[in-house]
Amino acid sequence: MFDTLWYGGDYNPEQWAPDVWDDDVRLMQRAGVTVATVGVFSWAKLEPADGEFDFAWLDDVIDRLHAGGVAVDLATATAAPPPWLVREHPDVLPVMADGTVLGVGSRQHYSPSSATYRRYAARLAERIVHRYADHPAVIAWHVNNEYGCHVPRCYSDESAVAFRAWLAERYGDIETLNDAWGTAFWSQHYASFEEVMPPRAAPASINPTQQLDFDRFSSDALLALHVMESEIIRARSDKPITTNFMGFFKAADYWAWAQHVDFVTDDAYPDPADPRAIPYAAAVRDIMRSLAGDKPWILMEQATSAVNWRPRNAPKPVGGFRRLSLQSIARGADGIMQFQWRQSVRGSEKFHSAMVPHAGEDTRIFREVCALGEELARLTDVIGTRVPSRVAVMFDWDSWWALEQTDTPARVSYVHAVLAWHHALWRAGVTVDFASRSSSLDSYDLVIVPSMQVVTPEVQERVAAARERGATVLVTYQSAILDLGLGVLPGGYLGSWASMLGVRVEEFAPFAHPDQYFDAPSTVPGSAVEGALAGDIEGWSEVVHADAAEVLATFTEGLAAGGPAITRRAPSEGAGAAWYVATQPSDALADAVVARLLADSGVTPVATSASPEVEAVRRGEKLFLINHGATAAEVEWDGGAATLEPGEVRVVASA
Amino acid sequence: MFDTLWYGGDYNPEQWAPDVWDDDVRLMQRAGVTVATVGVFSWAKLEPADGEFDFAWLDDVIDRLHAGGVAVDLATATAAPPPWLVREHPDVLPVMADGTVLGVGSRQHYSPSSATYRRYAARLAERIVHRYADHPAVIAWHVNNEYGCHVPRCYSDESAVAFRAWLAERYGDIETLNDAWGTAFWSQHYASFEEVMPPRAAPASINPTQQLDFDRFSSDALLALHVMESEIIRARSDKPITTNFMGFFKAADYWAWAQHVDFVTDDAYPDPADPRAIPYAAAVRDIMRSLAGDKPWILMEQATSAVNWRPRNAPKPVGGFRRLSLQSIARGADGIMQFQWRQSVRGSEKFHSAMVPHAGEDTRIFREVCALGEELARLTDVIGTRVPSRVAVMFDWDSWWALEQTDTPARVSYVHAVLAWHHALWRAGVTVDFASRSSSLDSYDLVIVPSMQVVTPEVQERVAAARERGATVLVTYQSAILDLGLGVLPGGYLGSWASMLGVRVEEFAPFAHPDQYFDAPSTVPGSAVEGALAGDIEGWSEVVHADAAEVLATFTEGLAAGGPAITRRAPSEGAGAAWYVATQPSDALADAVVARLLADSGVTPVATSASPEVEAVRRGEKLFLINHGATAAEVEWDGGAATLEPGEVRVVASA
Amino acid sequence: MFDTLWYGGDYNPEQWAPDVWDDDVRLMQRAGVTVATVGVFSWAKLEPADGEFDFAWLDDVIDRLHAGGVAVDLATATAAPPPWLVREHPDVLPVMADGTVLGVGSRQHYSPSSATYRRYAARLAERIVHRYADHPAVIAWHVNNEYGCHVPRCYSDESAVAFRAWLAERYGDIETLNDAWGTAFWSQHYASFEEVMPPRAAPASINPTQQLDFDRFSSDALLALHVMESEIIRARSDKPITTNFMGFFKAADYWAWAQHVDFVTDDAYPDPADPRAIPYAAAVRDIMRSLAGDKPWILMEQATSAVNWRPRNAPKPVGGFRRLSLQSIARGADGIMQFQWRQSVRGSEKFHSAMVPHAGEDTRIFREVCALGEELARLTDVIGTRVPSRVAVMFDWDSWWALEQTDTPARVSYVHAVLAWHHALWRAGVTVDFASRSSSLDSYDLVIVPSMQVVTPEVQERVAAARERGATVLVTYQSAILDLGLGVLPGGYLGSWASMLGVRVEEFAPFAHPDQYFDAPSTVPGSAVEGALAGDIEGWSEVVHADAAEVLATFTEGLAAGGPAITRRAPSEGAGAAWYVATQPSDALADAVVARLLADSGVTPVATSASPEVEAVRRGEKLFLINHGATAAEVEWDGGAATLEPGEVRVVASA
Repeated sequence: MFDTLWYGGDYNPEQWAPDVWDDDVRLMQRAGVTVATVGVFSWAKLEPADGEFDFAWLDDVIDRLHAGGVAVDLATATAAPPPWLVREHPDVLPVMADGTVLGVGSRQHYSPSSATYRRYAARLAERIVHRYADHPAVIAWHVNNEYGCHVPRCYSDESAVAFRAWLAERYGDIETLNDAWGTAFWSQHYASFEEVMPPRAAPASINPTQQLDFDRFSSDALLALHVMESEIIRARSDKPITTNFMGFFKAADYWAWAQHVDFVTDDAYPDPADPRAIPYAAAVRDIMRSLAGDKPWILMEQATSAVNWRPRNAPKPVGGFRRLSLQSIARGADGIMQFQWRQSVRGSEKFHSAMVPHAGEDTRIFREVCALGEELARLTDVIGTRVPSRVAVMFDWDSWWALEQTDTPARVSYVHAVLAWHHALWRAGVTVDFASRSSSLDSYDLVIVPSMQVVTPEVQERVAAARERGATVLVTYQSAILDLGLGVLPGGYLGSWASMLGVRVEEFAPFAHPDQYFDAPSTVPGSAVEGALAGDIEGWSEVVHADAAEVLATFTEGLAAGGPAITRRAPSEGAGAAWYVATQPSDALADAVVARLLADSGVTPVATSASPEVEAVRRGEKLFLINHGATAAEVEWDGGAATLEPGEVRVVASA
Repeated sequence: MFDTLWYGGDYNPEQWAPDVWDDDVRLMQRAGVTVATVGVFSWAKLEPADGEFDFAWLDDVIDRLHAGGVAVDLATATAAPPPWLVREHPDVLPVMADGTVLGVGSRQHYSPSSATYRRYAARLAERIVHRYADHPAVIAWHVNNEYGCHVPRCYSDESAVAFRAWLAERYGDIETLNDAWGTAFWSQHYASFEEVMPPRAAPASINPTQQLDFDRFSSDALLALHVMESEIIRARSDKPITTNFMGFFKAADYWAWAQHVDFVTDDAYPDPADPRAIPYAAAVRDIMRSLAGDKPWILMEQATSAVNWRPRNAPKPVGGFRRLSLQSIARGADGIMQFQWRQSVRGSEKFHSAMVPHAGEDTRIFREVCALGEELARLTDVIGTRVPSRVAVMFDWDSWWALEQTDTPARVSYVHAVLAWHHALWRAGVTVDFASRSSSLDSYDLVIVPSMQVVTPEVQERVAAARERGATVLVTYQSAILDLGLGVLPGGYLGSWASMLGVRVEEFAPFAHPDQYFDAPSTVPGSAVEGALAGDIEGWSEVVHADAAEVLATFTEGLAAGGPAITRRAPSEGAGAAWYVATQPSDALADAVVARLLADSGVTPVATSASPEVEAVRRGEKLFLINHGATAAEVEWDGGAATLEPGEVRVVASA
Repeated sequence: MFDTLWYGGDYNPEQWAPDVWDDDVRLMQRAGVTVATVGVFSWAKLEPADGEFDFAWLDDVIDRLHAGGVAVDLATATAAPPPWLVREHPDVLPVMADGTVLGVGSRQHYSPSSATYRRYAARLAERIVHRYADHPAVIAWHVNNEYGCHVPRCYSDESAVAFRAWLAERYGDIETLNDAWGTAFWSQHYASFEEVMPPRAAPASINPTQQLDFDRFSSDALLALHVMESEIIRARSDKPITTNFMGFFKAADYWAWAQHVDFVTDDAYPDPADPRAIPYAAAVRDIMRSLAGDKPWILMEQATSAVNWRPRNAPKPVGGFRRLSLQSIARGADGIMQFQWRQSVRGSEKFHSAMVPHAGEDTRIFREVCALGEELARLTDVIGTRVPSRVAVMFDWDSWWALEQTDTPARVSYVHAVLAWHHALWRAGVTVDFASRSSSLDSYDLVIVPSMQVVTPEVQERVAAARERGATVLVTYQSAILDLGLGVLPGGYLGSWASMLGVRVEEFAPFAHPDQYFDAPSTVPGSAVEGALAGDIEGWSEVVHADAAEVLATFTEGLAAGGPAITRRAPSEGAGAAWYVATQPSDALADAVVARLLADSGVTPVATSASPEVEAVRRGEKLFLINHGATAAEVEWDGGAATLEPGEVRVVASA
């Protein structure tokens, strides 16, 4: 789709006088910038009054970039409605569950279901596309920006009408909704769709399926905005379209969204203060590659150093910007973009780092920016190459939404439950794909299903089929408890996987922690398991019957003490091993399980190192070796070995 | 009133197809179920549209239960208004202090002061009573459900009108209110009742008496709903009436409520993760028995294992369900009911345990359910027998509301202040009654008055009279500070109790803890006391003058260092000992004081054990011995001794 | 201005019957009371209905006081509108950012921008001034009370109009506002002032300059109320006017306010539980003296012991009331007033200590009150004498507002940043003045500029000029980053101070602490510095280039490791030393730096002691020596030495 790696960033020339624009192009050339994203927050400048458009300045900017050899990723500029629109049409504003209206002064102050917003956004997008569709600098369209990041849900009356229409579409008639939602409980039976409300403030726990359907509706309502703009673009241009995702972003089911972009883009801001930032970032690259499938994906936003929006904003260490950029390339990215090109001197993000910092050219940051530009220019041949993976980890937004509701056995973090396994495989040097409920599992030798609370018969069948053809399968606690309407599966927890795994689950026994709340669920103290796979666990146990599986570890405390914690049904008749882990493992326990899973499945690391801070990924015929640590590390791979200096990145050829 | 112990639970057949109903009756018989509570959340099913009633299904259910030998506790079904009612009449909805309206989607979405709600609830109750008053299965009426548990207060305009009417009734004229509230402070003088508002959002601390009166009004407003339905029932039926209480529930002054039920019922969900759950549960049984007085009381709801509504929901240990049930019987209950009969598969409480769990009959839980059914059937002869107690602990909702307001010397937990003494007596094997401000104290040899901040001359006199006739009296810090209008008692803190106790209190000196907030007040660090009763204290000291009392312990730190912490006025001329404890004691210190109180009063334990986890209670001619611990324990009583195995419950005859 | 030290308190006779008034005068005389503040919360009593005034009771009270020899500080009584006003004119009520309206029931329920409130307040003030202007008891006017303490900002529609008018006055035209606010960022461009809103609830971070201007506007809106009443008074009376300040109160820029009072008054409630309460209180006295300049200042409110409004309210230790009072006199106060005279028995503050406590005359508190009255009577000759200081610490409300916004490098506490230096000088026995952005620095030998994030060219020049004439200058991290519009200074951080200090700052590197939020910023863990000034630091480091300064300490961890943490440019050519501290120091490190600063500047302590709890201050020809500690302490001064017993205060003559 693109013949060069993207390198550059959000470019907001409206914040600067034209004499700075000249300097921008000079510095972009010095830094090796190939692409600039333009116009993301330019609505007020492009349409200073209702229906009055001013494109002259944007013409100038795009022409200058083009003249300087910089391509343009052109935004539709619909992310932040200008004040005049709100003053004339306050119905565009979003409303919270308690009735609070969110107004002007920041950004994203629109309800996705506002007809007025949709009308004005469509008109603006149409004008921009009309004007620039044929400009040679423009190589892609950037629809809106970070849909839903501040306003993932709107509870306004207009949104209520849209929600009801969505429900009518999903359920057909109101009695089907009543059955799915279980409104017989607590006297919630609806006589008509008109009685149904968004989950606004209420005295007690709101119907779980109502909440889940509002999550689904809200994701779809935002996606509908993207589709609306995309159709406007496609009517006039065949240049590729994207909208920037935000990693593991709960409010948008990106499996559905990814169908509607020509290439996937991602905004990624791992916290340098988070000790898990590196493997977490790796997981984000992996899901972006998995969402993209056969399409390209590009890192659309990252910081060169600190951000501004955390309570305390740590800078990236020396070289950290490069290492995270090359991690992205290794894991499939076809470009490295930053927010933003030149650091603002006013506004909410003036303390957000940029490619050109406040202190100018003679700075650590700008030197790192230029060096990366040079390095990326030498990596053009990665474009179009694939990142091989024999392991699939399932990731499902419905399960995320369901598992983290109130009124569950215990509030746990879905992402934590999933990434415990991703990170253990990362530490083992094994690259992972993520798979949706609908993904084909045909190419995987190891399939991991962590806490997939919501299942369909189809996904249960697909996982079972993978095992039957020889793949190793691992299922963890709280998987296969509920159907799509959040009804408990008939026939018992785990549904049809019970027979695949050879176990039954009778009761849940989360470890108690009265002070533990949802926001930091990963540290709930647990207990130990003992047996072949002894180790620490976090927060969860359950009463399991291993009717047809070997018990590898048992719980030592609580109601489930003495009962199975980890089971394995041995391979037989061509079918792979089938594991069940009835708890959330510590890192050490996850590592031990992963070692056995690799043995069962025959999956091997791309490289091995004694250091847990060495990352190794193969892309095409290149092997990327990254030492994130502060000490030198030995690494070996099929056909070679090396010592990586602290912070070193090495890209070696490898078949 | 009833000739069998109630055993069963909330039965919500509307969640299931009729073929499940057959299975329900079969399993109820297997489990020994005697009573089912039916219809609690059936409004939407019984009145699917305004004025259209459908009782056919309920006829069927009640007939099946009757045929199966299961009696019915029939609900008036008014706890959760159906969506059509809200859509047609949004004025039924409750409004919070900041103006937020609480809508449909959960339950209890009505303002107690809504005339519309009252009209519709009355009509529904009348129809149900009319239809089922003479059905032979129906043995009791269950009014609404857990009044106030989610919406204890409503601040709507309609509630404001009702509040003003309540105030006019209480005070007669506005100047009497001005005097009682002290509106001269901060320029709050009201010229008429029309100017008075509920304590809605305000810039600073709201008038304390206004807050207290709103607490009282809100309890009365809910109680008025119960009385309204009760009168409808009594006009047609003489079967006994109840509404289910919720233990130590701050929003409803159950001393007043208990006058309006024919038998007391309670919903009790002690947290299995709370190390104080067992004695706390004992205290809840004790207050229910005390509220009931000469009437029966029944445990109306408990869980067989975990609940769903805490952030993390621990299961009950093996046998825990039985032990807490028999604890209730021992402490006077005439029945053990559960929420709910069959575990839901949809809705907010599908993860709440039930008598028939998701995993069905062949489960630990259902086996424990059946075993308890058998055991209760053998305990029928406890019905009508009394639980003797020679100790009264005073419990007063006005003091609870007052003590936990803002703008006090220090925010302390009233329930914690009271239960420290209950639990020490529980550990000593002594059964306790609770007493209200108006209760007779004639039958008690030991009267404990913990932190009773609000007093009347009458209760001061009644306690003094008890002491004068020989009872031992213990008063603790923050008692007798305020009158019913929250005015400081004239003549000094402690009022007339000062002379009874032989002490004066000059100043309060709570220990500082800037990070300590109201929600977890029991852990405020304190200091020590030394003397005859040395030990640790929590959070509170004060400057006391022991003019006519022996000083048993003195404070060691802070403003009060060197001054009295615990005093005792010796018995004389037939009057009992009079103790003052100027602090919140640690468990060990409370135990030491209790040992001396028992000696002073001549009160003796029903049994003794070295294990703090053995509970012993006499009911009628039976002695209940419960070992809640995980190790065997020796226990001795007047006329016997035994070793209780871990978890064992033994019921022995004892005169 | 006054020829006696004020001693007395808020006197609220409307809370008591007239027979108590007689007792009040008797006790006031016993206590040595000279002044009573009357009428602060009397609006409802003085104007019981719209336009109906009742002054008879106040005439009586003032006459009694006068007859008893007690002067009157007469309030305008406008602090708490009566309920009738709100009922008739709900438009007076303030509105919060989320739309919540704050109503009656407490106090201060008015919007500063309400025309109705202003009209009624003006009428009341006029009537009071008219009636009492010539009463011989009245010696001063007390306008309103604690402006903004509960409602520092109002977001109502009427406030929005006032905000726009304020902005139009400040910026002239909308494009100037757009430039200053940087509305090019996030598409916030305003076409007219009518589109601008207060910073109400919004989806994300609100424009920083909008927030800052709303802080400024809100301070000005409150000040305008004071000015309105002051003009009414001045038209009729030439007695001095004040309104009571609240120490380091963020919502009101007291540098501006102090221009509009005839004498400064302060309400000070240091928490006895706060280990830093004593030096913190000293700092509050110092800023009051500095705000007053050549005018007097009086401590208008303090507690004799505990307050009521913290979650837990510790009492003052024995003698603590006296020591804090004499600390105030030593630091320039011409009076010591208390809230309140007689402890209330009803209302929100009945548990607030007073001069006459609930327990009456025969109490520790009243004895301390009488003793202080006697002592103050012997100190009359301090009136008019000055507190010499050779050290200025700059304090700037704009920087406070800016530094504590969201979206900064790290949220830090401005007051903590400033007081670290004040307290180190306090520990060294050196008295400090605070200086505003506009204050002359001519009389100082040491100028400290802590975290002054917002600067003007003028203040940069003035500090540089002080150094050039020989003063030692210390600048700390986050100083001189932004201009008045919160634009990053052109030419680099530190602006023109970079050359003065001989350093450049390239990047910020706050230490990470993901759990650390704004409310307790002082405990952010840091790291160490090493070198000539080794020690611990808190929370902050940065990348500094010491181009023309000696490096005294370097960072040991993080991005800045090995780089300068503390630099000193040596004195030369008559210019003083110029220090830069790129971090927040521990106490020990601040002490070490201060020792060097004193050496550089030639500033010497007024006295020295090995005890960190001895406070020494010179006022006029008196030296005040206060031992706040629990052990005896030696102290030496120029011309004397003494041993202070625990808690002792000694006032010695000293030239």
